[in-house]
Amino acid sequence: MALITLNRTSAVMMSQTLIKVALPDDIGPGEKLPTVWLLHGLGDDGTVWQRKVPVEQYAVDHHWAIVMPGFDRSFYMNMAYGSPYGDYLEKELLPAMRNLLPLAAAPAVNWLVGNSMGGYGALRLAFLHPRWFSAVAVMSAVADLNSVLPIMPDHEAVFGPDDQELPTAQLAALVANAERPAVHRLRFYQTVGADDGFRPANDALMKLLTTKYGLHIDYHVDPGTHSWRYWREHLPTVLDWLAAGRG
Amino acid sequence: MALITLNRTSAVMMSQTLIKVALPDDIGPGEKLPTVWLLHGLGDDGTVWQRKVPVEQYAVDHHWAIVMPGFDRSFYMNMAYGSPYGDYLEKELLPAMRNLLPLAAAPAVNWLVGNSMGGYGALRLAFLHPRWFSAVAVMSAVADLNSVLPIMPDHEAVFGPDDQELPTAQLAALVANAERPAVHRLRFYQTVGADDGFRPANDALMKLLTTKYGLHIDYHVDPGTHSWRYWREHLPTVLDWLAAGRG
Amino acid sequence: MALITLNRTSAVMMSQTLIKVALPDDIGPGEKLPTVWLLHGLGDDGTVWQRKVPVEQYAVDHHWAIVMPGFDRSFYMNMAYGSPYGDYLEKELLPAMRNLLPLAAAPAVNWLVGNSMGGYGALRLAFLHPRWFSAVAVMSAVADLNSVLPIMPDHEAVFGPDDQELPTAQLAALVANAERPAVHRLRFYQTVGADDGFRPANDALMKLLTTKYGLHIDYHVDPGTHSWRYWREHLPTVLDWLAAGRG
Amino acid sequence: MALITLNRTSAVMMSQTLIKVALPDDIGPGEKLPTVWLLHGLGDDGTVWQRKVPVEQYAVDHHWAIVMPGFDRSFYMNMAYGSPYGDYLEKELLPAMRNLLPLAAAPAVNWLVGNSMGGYGALRLAFLHPRWFSAVAVMSAVADLNSVLPIMPDHEAVFGPDDQELPTAQLAALVANAERPAVHRLRFYQTVGADDGFRPANDALMKLLTTKYGLHIDYHVDPGTHSWRYWREHLPTVLDWLAAGRG
Repeated sequence: MALITLNRTSAVMMSQTLIKVALPDDIGPGEKLPTVWLLHGLGDDGTVWQRKVPVEQYAVDHHWAIVMPGFDRSFYMNMAYGSPYGDYLEKELLPAMRNLLPLAAAPAVNWLVGNSMGGYGALRLAFLHPRWFSAVAVMSAVADLNSVLPIMPDHEAVFGPDDQELPTAQLAALVANAERPAVHRLRFYQTVGADDGFRPANDALMKLLTTKYGLHIDYHVDPGTHSWRYWREHLPTVLDWLAAGRG
Repeated sequence: MALITLNRTSAVMMSQTLIKVALPDDIGPGEKLPTVWLLHGLGDDGTVWQRKVPVEQYAVDHHWAIVMPGFDRSFYMNMAYGSPYGDYLEKELLPAMRNLLPLAAAPAVNWLVGNSMGGYGALRLAFLHPRWFSAVAVMSAVADLNSVLPIMPDHEAVFGPDDQELPTAQLAALVANAERPAVHRLRFYQTVGADDGFRPANDALMKLLTTKYGLHIDYHVDPGTHSWRYWREHLPTVLDWLAAGRG
Repeated sequence: MALITLNRTSAVMMSQTLIKVALPDDIGPGEKLPTVWLLHGLGDDGTVWQRKVPVEQYAVDHHWAIVMPGFDRSFYMNMAYGSPYGDYLEKELLPAMRNLLPLAAAPAVNWLVGNSMGGYGALRLAFLHPRWFSAVAVMSAVADLNSVLPIMPDHEAVFGPDDQELPTAQLAALVANAERPAVHRLRFYQTVGADDGFRPANDALMKLLTTKYGLHIDYHVDPGTHSWRYWREHLPTVLDWLAAGRG
Repeated sequence: MALITLNRTSAVMMSQTLIKVALPDDIGPGEKLPTVWLLHGLGDDGTVWQRKVPVEQYAVDHHWAIVMPGFDRSFYMNMAYGSPYGDYLEKELLPAMRNLLPLAAAPAVNWLVGNSMGGYGALRLAFLHPRWFSAVAVMSAVADLNSVLPIMPDHEAVFGPDDQELPTAQLAALVANAERPAVHRLRFYQTVGADDGFRPANDALMKLLTTKYGLHIDYHVDPGTHSWRYWREHLPTVLDWLAAGRG
């Protein structure tokens, strides 16, 4: 059982970052690990997954690396006002982590997982770079960005004046512009609590992705709300689903 | 020798924070420690002081607490677009840290120290709440906010569209509105490198504060640039100056 | 939600220590928190509880401090060969943590919890200082020190040549010498897996403590083995049991 | 600037370890970094170098990895009573770190550095495995193990009853059994404070190694004592000396 706490200067953002990585102990010479990129929700950072859920246990059980970066309140994109978190994610984080740690680069063993804002981030990155990954699994995703405006006083920092950049940041817009064949090769898992306020938007997103774009989504509405209790219960299932798809 | 790494949820900002605190080991029952609030510069966070300078050694030598919070790229104020770091600093951080750790609240043993953006932050907080502290010491301070615009692509996140909030955030404006008698009771230390690009603005600020407002400033221009080498060399001097003023 | 990672020099042991403390965020001025002293098992250290179990969540839910110190492979006693961990625990750790953090000292809100070797440690400290605490809860405790000798190549480091100090370190010996009325005032919770190899020794200890010493023990044998799965499942129950006893 | 804090289970010791690693940020694809193995003294652990000295700065300046493992009070050997730290160092730590991080294995860019007990450890490992490294630099080394007995109540934990294993652990004994040609290829740097109580033993060791074994040692007695002040001043010089020898 191994846990890395990494303090690292981001060149793209000209600021400090904090990344947690859970790993197995017994890594062989030259071995490259399958990698889960585990993205956090609004109000959390790269440390919270590990403080809420026994992530290390899962890294050991599956013999994977689980990388937990911090993205503040950025929605994993270049903020209209603020730091270029999108460039950081796409251009710096992935290669820097692969240069630093024994992480496999093959899409077959690179997966995106996220909760809430991190669910949005996982789908966003999958639609922008579908060739980089083979599966995406989201829990209680922010399926419609309008859902967060009422609970996010700083929304214009991300989306700009009058949230003018919000429409093009919507998942519905991103999938429309995505590289279709590559997106079709991705496996999707989507789960949301029956009593989660984001459930209707998740239902709608699932319907759009399956009917309009013909994506296959393993969709689950289970008892629960928008809460760590839900994510704690479902993360093991999500990871097992990822593992089952490797064959 | 003791070092605390604190992960804490901020209620005001609805986000996670990371704070380092250096302390002596031998704290007596009921003892409350003199406290240095050590503020970082642009591009750094709450961990960097401790990674660059032997802060713990100084905490032990002086038998003080040295608190190193993280303020991202916020200039220690409520961002025009972004998180309310000013409220966090003034309304949450100080009381929360005093409720958590054995820190004295008496102004006589509360001091502000900062470098670069943190120098601005230290003076800013001193002018806003001069009764809370007895001394302020700044190294290579951002004495004029216009100096940072060219090196800060995200300046509007802090200062708003067209930097419209910049004029009222200038130290010259803050001191003009400060509670005069309380500010006069503060001790000031200001140092800047002879070859630091911020030197002219520091000279001008010093002149303004001393001539127009009659503040006494212990001002030092020493060989050096805007660099960690300068701050590493001068922090011990600054702390000794704080200690000397306690009598 | 707050998590402290404390690096601290121990004066008693002349070495560095690493302590994790989980806390609620909203601590009031002058407030002192009820405290769980959570002791780890053989092969673990002060970081492992937090990496295996969502301890912070419980600290928030109960509004308690949960202190997780590191005791290496020492069995929470002065090692025959090695460091004086017993003195460190009894004479340094408790007062130092109370001087550093807002921890209540009242026995009514101080509780010992441990798993495996930490279960031994919790009972050991309770028998040595029964007036300091009001409850002890152990999971899968090393109820008979002889049980660990086969899996502990370094047992003589703790117990001395030919394990000559083992008999006096047995819980049966410690309770015999304990201050009887104070021990009687303690509440005890003891749980062990039905398939745990330590179950017979736990049965025997429970029988001894209840019949010979008249202690009341809330004893539970539940399905499971000597594993983190068992401790992860039972820690919430143990903490709820502590909370229920406060009234 | 990057700093890793690694919590890792040791298979050899069946216990948790804590390792700090300082690294540059800009590591290229497939790049392997020259590595300094930086060993701590008695009373310290793997965190202390980084808390006392700006190690990260040096890692960036030289573009090296600096690995700072923890060895408690073990003298980097299998303890007579206690954990097998020698096996851990020789058989687990080096390969595990090279499998986890981008560290070059070539002896030409692997160097041992240590202070006090860590100076002993560095020379010990160099004499045991001279082919693994190209240089060894020690500051204020425990050149004669008898020197530490008076200040080390737990010395029998390391050296056994009546310190019976001490003679074979002496550096004089280890060099006598070392592989002569390989040891001759090593570069040695040794420094000690003029007022350090270990100076006579360092003088004697230097004399033995140079006259009896024909080793070339870059030996420096500089003003100072057995203190962090000395090590803080001399570590940069030591690292520059390592860098100069690469050509």
